[in-house]
Amino acid sequence: MKHPLKTDFRIGFLGAGQLARMSSLQAFRFGMQVSVFSDRKENEPVQFMTPYSWSGSFDDVESMMEFASSCDVITLENEFIDSKILAELQRRSGTPIYPSPESFALIENKLIEKQTFENAGIPVTPYKLIESQDDLNSFGDKYGWPYLLKSSKGGYDGYGNETVTDAESAKDAFKKLGGESGREIIAEAFVDFTHELAVQVARNEHGYVVYPCCETVQENHINVAVKAPAEVDESIRLKSQELAVTAAEAIDGKGIFAFEFFLTKEGDLLLNESAPRPHNSGHYTIEGTVTSQFENHVRAVCGLPLGDVSMIKPAAVMMNLLGTNKRPAVIENHEKALAEPNGHLHSYGKLESKPGRKMAHFTLIGEEMKDVYKRARECTKVIKI
Amino acid sequence: MKHPLKTDFRIGFLGAGQLARMSSLQAFRFGMQVSVFSDRKENEPVQFMTPYSWSGSFDDVESMMEFASSCDVITLENEFIDSKILAELQRRSGTPIYPSPESFALIENKLIEKQTFENAGIPVTPYKLIESQDDLNSFGDKYGWPYLLKSSKGGYDGYGNETVTDAESAKDAFKKLGGESGREIIAEAFVDFTHELAVQVARNEHGYVVYPCCETVQENHINVAVKAPAEVDESIRLKSQELAVTAAEAIDGKGIFAFEFFLTKEGDLLLNESAPRPHNSGHYTIEGTVTSQFENHVRAVCGLPLGDVSMIKPAAVMMNLLGTNKRPAVIENHEKALAEPNGHLHSYGKLESKPGRKMAHFTLIGEEMKDVYKRARECTKVIKI
Repeated sequence: MKHPLKTDFRIGFLGAGQLARMSSLQAFRFGMQVSVFSDRKENEPVQFMTPYSWSGSFDDVESMMEFASSCDVITLENEFIDSKILAELQRRSGTPIYPSPESFALIENKLIEKQTFENAGIPVTPYKLIESQDDLNSFGDKYGWPYLLKSSKGGYDGYGNETVTDAESAKDAFKKLGGESGREIIAEAFVDFTHELAVQVARNEHGYVVYPCCETVQENHINVAVKAPAEVDESIRLKSQELAVTAAEAIDGKGIFAFEFFLTKEGDLLLNESAPRPHNSGHYTIEGTVTSQFENHVRAVCGLPLGDVSMIKPAAVMMNLLGTNKRPAVIENHEKALAEPNGHLHSYGKLESKPGRKMAHFTLIGEEMKDVYKRARECTKVIKI
Repeated sequence: MKHPLKTDFRIGFLGAGQLARMSSLQAFRFGMQVSVFSDRKENEPVQFMTPYSWSGSFDDVESMMEFASSCDVITLENEFIDSKILAELQRRSGTPIYPSPESFALIENKLIEKQTFENAGIPVTPYKLIESQDDLNSFGDKYGWPYLLKSSKGGYDGYGNETVTDAESAKDAFKKLGGESGREIIAEAFVDFTHELAVQVARNEHGYVVYPCCETVQENHINVAVKAPAEVDESIRLKSQELAVTAAEAIDGKGIFAFEFFLTKEGDLLLNESAPRPHNSGHYTIEGTVTSQFENHVRAVCGLPLGDVSMIKPAAVMMNLLGTNKRPAVIENHEKALAEPNGHLHSYGKLESKPGRKMAHFTLIGEEMKDVYKRARECTKVIKI
């Protein structure tokens, strides 16, 4: 691979959303050029930021070839492209892809993912491959109703998941998810947790860095905020960081990874989800840590040494700013957020807002979590997008 | 003007170099789009960062019209475009330009600039309009030889300046600079200074913010480093900041401005130069202060409230990384810089390096200036570009 700090070095992003956008900003800071491939034609966040833009289908290697050939390295902002497609794109274009297609192969299928992490000694949410109608009932009887049914491939933020409450609904959901027509379906227990935690790990041939364990705050099943560090015992934070490093190693990850854990009432950590990319839970690192998840994403996939992940101040809070109206996007009532010392407003440049769409975020750093969280909420609760 | 946090808001840069590049990175963070106009055809830093790029002549309003019409607001990264051209571009396109053409008119001519600041009560480097051969000699006799002759318009980093040592060389230089063919020439005394200081001010309809007084470190007349805050008495720093605010007000500046001062052996501050744009002396603010000069540049010209300019840590050092070789640009021996906690490497994406060209910079922040400066030098002295 070409020297990554040669200024005609081109990093390519499969996917043109806010995660690729924030990574691109860092790539530019290193003097790199950016290529982007989107499965949407126009107006995606990164498409406003580079002259080197392609559109097509993530299922069609041919449609990605010109993009891939323009890059010195390719990375991803999502996990929806089949690892076989990635492997073929890498082989045909000769451009390395990180995280590697081999890493993707270990996490694109939820069953293999859970087995991989379990084999590495990481406790995961209880699950079972559903091979018969009997399994549907015995899982509920063993781990309790309701529980989740999931297609082992695909699915994101609740899509491709069904909550089942009894034998009847389990049967219906199994059918709806395609279980009867041969799709691999797994059951997953609901975990009675006190906290949802997340840890980012960046890793490449130089080693790894692990970010502070943070906490995602949900309201009505929507992640509204992230607190870093998480308000749990230090021993829990350290344990989650240790498990996250083990997980990154288990998939031989090169890039930035996020691992989400449930902390149970009994104080156990269960790995819930993994993401082979920058993650919403790590947005606070832009101002909250010395080296952001986006900078370490770029460093990791380009083979550069990884950067320090110490926190700048003791507490950081990131508030997701979701669309409030269906309309051309505009951030209204931003004055309090912009006036807040140590507050930082990030907009993703999406032209159209709609209720619940991730449009922007606001990070506030400070000395004491309770105060920082209170101020961050006050700055953002008035914002309309 | 359209709401600046509407995501189809487009900020335009006249000039496509590293200053516009770093401001663009901030504009993207606010969700804005970026248009750029360069007087060079290709491979300028910002041209790699947007699909909306035009080239032409800064002297030709017509060539800038399509660019200007694509923008909601226009700003500049240099001071070489005639204020009359700017006024005509603004009038014809209907797109506001900040800093305004009226502000530019007060600083594009060194004579008017000095008079403007003097009238505002700001001490400036001793100068005189040369109206006769006698003036050439009397200036030297009064303020000492050698002194500087400058064309009142144009000139940058020493171009358009001549150092004169005696009556004969003064006569030759006056002719060389075009004084005999009607160009306005001013004499400027060399000042015996102990420190060169710089202060950034951002200002718009919401008010102003003034950055800490920093110090530029010269070696062989080249600015190799910036220390913030400057290692001078606090009273001097506060005085320079006060003068900088007065200067920004004197030109009714809307935007970001840098003011450079000499601190004389006697402890007096003399305003030496002003820049109506982000400035090399302010690069340290990206990591060194809560809100960078580039963010406040964007905020100021877009009419947003200005951001806090407190320092993140007590000491910040910025090292300019100049080209070391004539070759395709590549940053070699970067490992120490990238590994330094609290160190931040910025490359401008210029494809071609040559000795002395501004290619990149490195900022290190920390607790104590002496230590930070030493480490910043150690990280960067091995770098070849």
